[in-house]
Amino acid sequence: MNVAVVTVGDELLAGQTTNTNATWLCERLNERGVTVERVTTVPDRVADIARVVNEYRAEYDAVIVTGGLGPTHDDVTMEGIAAALGRPLETHEEALTWLEEDGYSRSELTEGTAELPTGARALHNEAGVAPGAALEDVYVLPGVPTEMQTMFEAIAPAFSGTPTYREEVVADEPESALLDRLEEIQDRFDVSVGSYPGESVRIAIESTDEATVAEAAAWLRERVDTV
Amino acid sequence: MNVAVVTVGDELLAGQTTNTNATWLCERLNERGVTVERVTTVPDRVADIARVVNEYRAEYDAVIVTGGLGPTHDDVTMEGIAAALGRPLETHEEALTWLEEDGYSRSELTEGTAELPTGARALHNEAGVAPGAALEDVYVLPGVPTEMQTMFEAIAPAFSGTPTYREEVVADEPESALLDRLEEIQDRFDVSVGSYPGESVRIAIESTDEATVAEAAAWLRERVDTV
Repeated sequence: MNVAVVTVGDELLAGQTTNTNATWLCERLNERGVTVERVTTVPDRVADIARVVNEYRAEYDAVIVTGGLGPTHDDVTMEGIAAALGRPLETHEEALTWLEEDGYSRSELTEGTAELPTGARALHNEAGVAPGAALEDVYVLPGVPTEMQTMFEAIAPAFSGTPTYREEVVADEPESALLDRLEEIQDRFDVSVGSYPGESVRIAIESTDEATVAEAAAWLRERVDTV
Repeated sequence: MNVAVVTVGDELLAGQTTNTNATWLCERLNERGVTVERVTTVPDRVADIARVVNEYRAEYDAVIVTGGLGPTHDDVTMEGIAAALGRPLETHEEALTWLEEDGYSRSELTEGTAELPTGARALHNEAGVAPGAALEDVYVLPGVPTEMQTMFEAIAPAFSGTPTYREEVVADEPESALLDRLEEIQDRFDVSVGSYPGESVRIAIESTDEATVAEAAAWLRERVDTV
């Protein structure tokens, strides 16, 4: 299964917030064996949200959208999803009932708070107010990290694939000096290898077979200067 | 001026690294008055890099690409850029000379280390080895943060626009309770207003006129429960 993650928010594009929601979602999806093919941040604009979501729906198995839910003028994500799917927004009775159970009265609730694209399944916000939505292959979650995380756990079973196992070997050699062994490990073992230079070089070894990863990592550890 | 930022790396998509390069670049660009319209993370795959870079070149004034430079098999960004621009890779003599000056001998250098798309201007990597490239409206920077940051400073003058001023007011009220004042501030002042709920609600007030921002922020501070 492969998915795209779309994070909505002018604040992300202005560099005022680091996109830790994307990291968190990618890590959870990866653990579940799901491949994330794109992470894209778009502005708080209906047309941009709709375009990107539709492009990714056409290409991947599912799209997870976070951010831009709520009552204020810059919360336009649901409108973008409605536009993408060609469905009007309408008040979702179940979502409204949840909000009432959480202590909000109908009259007090801001117009639009419980509006979701027609036909969407409402996702309860256990940690906040604004409901999320699931509709066809699109999942819409809030942008506040605790709310997003709690809501994702409720939809997590929809995301599954072949788990990938991973081990890291940290080498205290220049990346260019490691090339012979990086080549050899890929010849010897059925693994994919990533090489991430920094202070040292982190070499990530991955495979869907746990024993192969362990064997390849052990082989490499004996052959590089480890930190 | 508007730009897109493309960050390349399977590791980002697996949630093993938080995309702080994107945050840093967005912040620098924003300070220079440049609008970032998209931040997209793509896998270490030539075709994906080429597609996304070409889509964004068609739409925005410039594209900044980071990550995937270097000598290993998973460093395919230059190949992706070459494919996007329809130019072959070739050894860049100036880049090779820099590397020699940095103490690498030609024979010792891994094949490809100084290969850039034909016609590219090489960008010296003051903090590392792999050179970057500037070609038409595409700027290619390394993924190691210190290297990326140092190289960006060298190309920063290419990015300019109308600076936006910003002030934040942190309100200790529910976001839904603030709606009347969020509406009124936008009626009274020529500012754009973003509202970011969390523990409290951060209200960001922005305009290209510094005095207007200060005036609007002062007006709002008197009218919300501040933290």
